Amino acid sequence: MSGKINNDDKWKITEDTLGYIISRIQERYEESLSEGDDDFNNGRKLAFYEVLDMMKNDLESRGYSLDDFK
Amino acid sequence: MSGKINNDDKWKITEDTLGYIISRIQERYEESLSEGDDDFNNGRKLAFYEVLDMMKNDLESRGYSLDDFK
Repeated sequence: MSGKINNDDKWKITEDTLGYIISRIQERYEESLSEGDDDFNNGRKLAFYEVLDMMKNDLESRGYSLDDFK
Repeated sequence: MSGKINNDDKWKITEDTLGYIISRIQERYEESLSEGDDDFNNGRKLAFYEVLDMMKNDLESRGYSLDDFK
């Protein structure tokens, strides 16, 4: 229940996890777009965008598209 | 090179990707903490925090800790 997990366990869970994580961030980002246009919300929108952009790049550098995970 | 990837391909790449993605977001979040204390930056910090918190919950609900992926 504690300590480091081994590699086999570690990656078994990603099979149903990465796609879910991406869709949740995407959802949060889309919700943020309809929120207020003040500095705070604009900073928040930017960070969600940055995260999705990083993930997009990480996936594209491996030959995949973010859309494949939606 | 285009279109949907099949499940086998899809999840092969997560084996070296999820840990990398998490560490990059974590890094970006930590950098943001040392940036200005204005509304824009505070919104940005919150969003990074929200993303990490969502990922933490997604992983914990599957019996893992975010720390296992660092």
